[in-house]
Amino acid sequence: MESPISNYLRTVLDECRGSDGGSIPQGNAELARADTELFGIALATVGGSVYTAGDAEYEFSVQSIAKTLAYALALDDRGRDAMAEIVDTEPSGDSFNEISLEPETGRPRNALINAGALAVHSMIEGTSSEDRAERVRLLHSRLAGRELTIDAAVHEAELAADDRNTGIAHLLKAVGVLGADPAEVVDGYARQCAISVNCRDLATIAAVMANGGISPETGERLLDTRHNRHVLSVMATCGMYDGTGSWISTVGIPAKSGVAGAIIGVLPGQVGIAVVSPNLNEHGNSVRGVAVFERLSRDLELHMMHVSPTGDSAVRTTADGDDEATVELQGDLRFAGAESILVALSRTTARALVLDFEHVRAIDDAARSLLQHAVDRLREENRDVTVRDPQSLMSA
Amino acid sequence: MESPISNYLRTVLDECRGSDGGSIPQGNAELARADTELFGIALATVGGSVYTAGDAEYEFSVQSIAKTLAYALALDDRGRDAMAEIVDTEPSGDSFNEISLEPETGRPRNALINAGALAVHSMIEGTSSEDRAERVRLLHSRLAGRELTIDAAVHEAELAADDRNTGIAHLLKAVGVLGADPAEVVDGYARQCAISVNCRDLATIAAVMANGGISPETGERLLDTRHNRHVLSVMATCGMYDGTGSWISTVGIPAKSGVAGAIIGVLPGQVGIAVVSPNLNEHGNSVRGVAVFERLSRDLELHMMHVSPTGDSAVRTTADGDDEATVELQGDLRFAGAESILVALSRTTARALVLDFEHVRAIDDAARSLLQHAVDRLREENRDVTVRDPQSLMSA
Amino acid sequence: MESPISNYLRTVLDECRGSDGGSIPQGNAELARADTELFGIALATVGGSVYTAGDAEYEFSVQSIAKTLAYALALDDRGRDAMAEIVDTEPSGDSFNEISLEPETGRPRNALINAGALAVHSMIEGTSSEDRAERVRLLHSRLAGRELTIDAAVHEAELAADDRNTGIAHLLKAVGVLGADPAEVVDGYARQCAISVNCRDLATIAAVMANGGISPETGERLLDTRHNRHVLSVMATCGMYDGTGSWISTVGIPAKSGVAGAIIGVLPGQVGIAVVSPNLNEHGNSVRGVAVFERLSRDLELHMMHVSPTGDSAVRTTADGDDEATVELQGDLRFAGAESILVALSRTTARALVLDFEHVRAIDDAARSLLQHAVDRLREENRDVTVRDPQSLMSA
Amino acid sequence: MESPISNYLRTVLDECRGSDGGSIPQGNAELARADTELFGIALATVGGSVYTAGDAEYEFSVQSIAKTLAYALALDDRGRDAMAEIVDTEPSGDSFNEISLEPETGRPRNALINAGALAVHSMIEGTSSEDRAERVRLLHSRLAGRELTIDAAVHEAELAADDRNTGIAHLLKAVGVLGADPAEVVDGYARQCAISVNCRDLATIAAVMANGGISPETGERLLDTRHNRHVLSVMATCGMYDGTGSWISTVGIPAKSGVAGAIIGVLPGQVGIAVVSPNLNEHGNSVRGVAVFERLSRDLELHMMHVSPTGDSAVRTTADGDDEATVELQGDLRFAGAESILVALSRTTARALVLDFEHVRAIDDAARSLLQHAVDRLREENRDVTVRDPQSLMSA
Repeated sequence: MESPISNYLRTVLDECRGSDGGSIPQGNAELARADTELFGIALATVGGSVYTAGDAEYEFSVQSIAKTLAYALALDDRGRDAMAEIVDTEPSGDSFNEISLEPETGRPRNALINAGALAVHSMIEGTSSEDRAERVRLLHSRLAGRELTIDAAVHEAELAADDRNTGIAHLLKAVGVLGADPAEVVDGYARQCAISVNCRDLATIAAVMANGGISPETGERLLDTRHNRHVLSVMATCGMYDGTGSWISTVGIPAKSGVAGAIIGVLPGQVGIAVVSPNLNEHGNSVRGVAVFERLSRDLELHMMHVSPTGDSAVRTTADGDDEATVELQGDLRFAGAESILVALSRTTARALVLDFEHVRAIDDAARSLLQHAVDRLREENRDVTVRDPQSLMSA
Repeated sequence: MESPISNYLRTVLDECRGSDGGSIPQGNAELARADTELFGIALATVGGSVYTAGDAEYEFSVQSIAKTLAYALALDDRGRDAMAEIVDTEPSGDSFNEISLEPETGRPRNALINAGALAVHSMIEGTSSEDRAERVRLLHSRLAGRELTIDAAVHEAELAADDRNTGIAHLLKAVGVLGADPAEVVDGYARQCAISVNCRDLATIAAVMANGGISPETGERLLDTRHNRHVLSVMATCGMYDGTGSWISTVGIPAKSGVAGAIIGVLPGQVGIAVVSPNLNEHGNSVRGVAVFERLSRDLELHMMHVSPTGDSAVRTTADGDDEATVELQGDLRFAGAESILVALSRTTARALVLDFEHVRAIDDAARSLLQHAVDRLREENRDVTVRDPQSLMSA
Repeated sequence: MESPISNYLRTVLDECRGSDGGSIPQGNAELARADTELFGIALATVGGSVYTAGDAEYEFSVQSIAKTLAYALALDDRGRDAMAEIVDTEPSGDSFNEISLEPETGRPRNALINAGALAVHSMIEGTSSEDRAERVRLLHSRLAGRELTIDAAVHEAELAADDRNTGIAHLLKAVGVLGADPAEVVDGYARQCAISVNCRDLATIAAVMANGGISPETGERLLDTRHNRHVLSVMATCGMYDGTGSWISTVGIPAKSGVAGAIIGVLPGQVGIAVVSPNLNEHGNSVRGVAVFERLSRDLELHMMHVSPTGDSAVRTTADGDDEATVELQGDLRFAGAESILVALSRTTARALVLDFEHVRAIDDAARSLLQHAVDRLREENRDVTVRDPQSLMSA
Repeated sequence: MESPISNYLRTVLDECRGSDGGSIPQGNAELARADTELFGIALATVGGSVYTAGDAEYEFSVQSIAKTLAYALALDDRGRDAMAEIVDTEPSGDSFNEISLEPETGRPRNALINAGALAVHSMIEGTSSEDRAERVRLLHSRLAGRELTIDAAVHEAELAADDRNTGIAHLLKAVGVLGADPAEVVDGYARQCAISVNCRDLATIAAVMANGGISPETGERLLDTRHNRHVLSVMATCGMYDGTGSWISTVGIPAKSGVAGAIIGVLPGQVGIAVVSPNLNEHGNSVRGVAVFERLSRDLELHMMHVSPTGDSAVRTTADGDDEATVELQGDLRFAGAESILVALSRTTARALVLDFEHVRAIDDAARSLLQHAVDRLREENRDVTVRDPQSLMSA
């Protein structure tokens, strides 16, 4: 059986091909040569499936989309406090080409506008611009699950048209936000923008972010859970420049676009999505890319605020006898799941209780702590509690 | 067993009592009389549990928190397009007391600043200010699950200090955003602000919003699913004024605060939370309220971007024989769940398939459509597919 | 001989009649009825001449032009320090319909935008709105040299469309800038705007301001010299809203426009000018009025920065003998004049000096003090100095 | 006799020495070494007198004060229209370190903020940065009346701390406002800032500007009259950054400050003033410099809006006989002077009229045209008009 999802994605591309208008920006000579008909999509789930349609294997430069992983990398290198001194986390309320430094501190408004991304890039550990860009490339490669390269022609074309970034970098230096040499930072940033990716890569990267930083493929943790959460939060409030509020209420998927025509979207707990089509609207976002995201959000009800109740399914079965009750747990246990288990436990009057963690996939600290408290209380009440925990999840 | 959650909430209140500073605003004579020691919390889950601690039953005026349900009501009355002509959905980047009208259209930036909330109130259907405020009161009562009242003393004190709102209402009239009489709108808005609630009420209301607009208690739909999603999106990007970006990355719970010292938070699919403590910080948010939310988010890992993978648990069991396979589904099926079912189906080679919906609680259109497509395909491949659907979920 | 100036003004009107475009604002029902062909001009010199052309006797409402004399009146009533707490003196950088309150103090940016003018009106002494407006009317009458009236129909039409001013007045009240009742202030301001004037009146008023506050007709002081100077300074930097910088460099005449289509210009030491033509451009200024001012400034070299050297002409004649020298002074002596007299005195070596003030018209404190110092010095050097001062100018 | 003016200036310095506070900016290593006790003043009249006190001969770098003559030079090189495409003439409403580009065109707000001054410098004709700076140096030398030099140490220290200007220059390049190479422009601008001057030089330069662009010393025209007027207008509305409105109403002298602690002031038709004292306030203006200007304006009534009536003194004498009348004219004849002559002429009924221009110093086009018209009219009325014009002023 071919998946109806692949089929559906093809239909969406066909129908969104009619979203005309926009144009290819002329600043970068390499980007300016893009084929306006290029149109691809990939959707990767946190379960590890990847679906594609159209030119999903076609490679282009990642551009501003790299701001997200570069931010995650700098957060890992320096910690959140040090990064907060360099860049704020507020929407700028400005268009994509505004500078938006805070009047008092000189901090860029957020890490996803150019000013912020330059400051962020300068904070990545490394001894040179090549070094820093190389580390960004490596992180992209790890999340994409294949070796990515930096497109030298795009990097050079970028440097040939870098007056704006050079200007911003010098201003950041002047206000004390940039420690490094401006030309170094602009060069490193231009390299980072020139990482070559396709839609499949970007969707795979997005799925790791949707999966809390863990590869759905290998189960390996690739991004710090709190830094991943932070980057997604900033994407949710600042990712689409001065139209982010409207994007979040309409599409509801934290996202980031790049000037080469790609948009990446991350719906936590569900999917990563990437679309590419080079013609951009006046906000600098791909015209067809926006159309596709609106369509997917509507058709598939993919929206940050449309989340399934997560508690109920935590209790797999409850076998309640007079003397002994068994509660089988399952899935990823977080606060709501733990709370529903507590409710189930409080309803049983059996003196002996078995709590079975065999089918639980993961448990976070909050859930573990609540469940441990409950077990302690029940034992204080002289109930006989047995914890079946073959994966030792409760002792982590 | 007393729930460890209640116990935990008491501990949080005790420890956050040390968050000093802030002050009671002096604008409204009734609010100015508030007891600075008042401190309560309630947490209501989408599973229907409610936990409280401190002064959770103490009543105060809902104030700006009513902007959220009033917005939902106006969206129901007029539809999203008509509302979009009156109020935008972008963060203002301004502090709580800015006016923030769009330069060209005069539209307030969003429905959660005063200018927007006045425009929204004027769009609620009704023949008078009493009428409109009464409908807002009724909606609050339905979601809170008990009859709420309007505090006449607060309403009067509000009118005695309404120069700012009167000013804004006249400006909105002047730019054509307000159809109604400014004094009428200000009066109706003042009544809406004076609805008397306690923390339990607010958390219960928030839990309905977290549950997609459906009462966890009765299973009744109380808010339109798309309008609820829209209001939550605006809370996520604009709810905490010029500090929303920082709030979302740190706390990660869409929220709204009121000048009486309450903060309401809605974590979709999980919980509704309400805290009250009258001293406000310079942003107009409760000092202790903010401390409590930061604590809860950290301790309980309650964060919009910290969502469990939702797909896996959709498949309850797969009994795969050579000739016949049975796939038992469960929970709330949405895109990710349906996708994981498709994956499970694609892995089985049995000619005869049973798809068992008995343990499914709900299914959305996207999931239903995908599963129907899959069943159709399998049948086209001459597989023998039986759908066990005692609740007729697939035929809705 | 008919003056070539009258003739010239007729030519200017004829040639500027071709400046088309613009429209009559529809806010005020009375103004909306204006005849678009109405076109008049008056030019009054500080020497007391008045030249007119076109519909110079046609009456219309003074509107925002009254902001200037109302400001002078409030400055007289309260003093400059008290006024500085209520309204700033900086350009707003905003268009004519912006509110422009200072973020920290709530002060309107200047007295010539509506917010500032409302605050200023509230500071005029008086027990009622009628009272305050009556005092503004009286001041206009005194400067115009005839009894002006308030047009009741315009006042009423103004009140029927006052949402914007009412809004601003309430906001000013809310931030503590307005002490009085907002409705009172809006009514008084509407009355002040409805004072009926013609071009001759406005040019005559402007000539008093150009003459340092003294009536060229009667020689009577009608405005405090420092307050007049202050009002003119604010006209120079803020009088034409967001186009003031361009106006001052191009036209170079401190000015103020009114929504009825008039523009008043004051060139200190030279002339007052008033033009009326109802069609307004997008900045709210009379299209033909602007064209006329540009023309007059260019043709007549009327520009604030095009000032004659003022020193030289202070010395009428110097009769320098070996033993006795006579220095005849003339004109209005200010610093530069006094300085040129000092230079003349320092060049003479005659032991006996006669300083003749007979032809001096006026002398300011700075000049008097310098000359007195010089006389004292010369006497210390044992020179024999005689001061002929039949008007006792030096002993004032 | 020592002039009481020199004496007065000494007193002012002594009394303003008490104006403490402020600090020396640390950006430029050469400036940072300045002696905080340095304090000098010079005052030069349009009559050619120069008065000094304190360290008036001490040399320092001209810094931002050079923005004014560089602007005049670029206006001469390119014309006003070409310059208007590069830089606007509006106050920025921003502090001295804002960038203030127009949202739509990218034009800097005015030529006196750094962004504007860099754009202006790039428009000066020349084949290199040395060339352009050399032409700015030459113009300063001509107006100062002595050969000025560029301080190489200051130029180098400037380049060592030029991140802000480099940033702005690249941004201007990016938006298409700067045609030249950013590094070239920044270097040329740094050279221009490093021109070495003393207070006497600056006051002498200012006196040329006050005298309409003509050297009071030699009578030679050094600046185009209209470009000089334009530069003075921009100084009046934008010269003191976000405090210009207040400066103009309080001090009333178009001015420009430099980071080395100097302030230059130009009062058209009267004087040029320069003060130096290195400690700067938070606006970047010399603390004592501001105090001195406030003092001079108050004591000497030096204020742009305090202008002597200019008409009256144009008529020297009127000898009115029955048959023949003689009108002796004098001074600089402009519109107001010509108008007062017309009035005098219209009052005489003598058939034969002698108009004597012997004592007239200068006459502008407007005055010449009006007087010619009058003579023509009188002759049409068969009056016998004789024009005594030994300097051929009327035939120019």
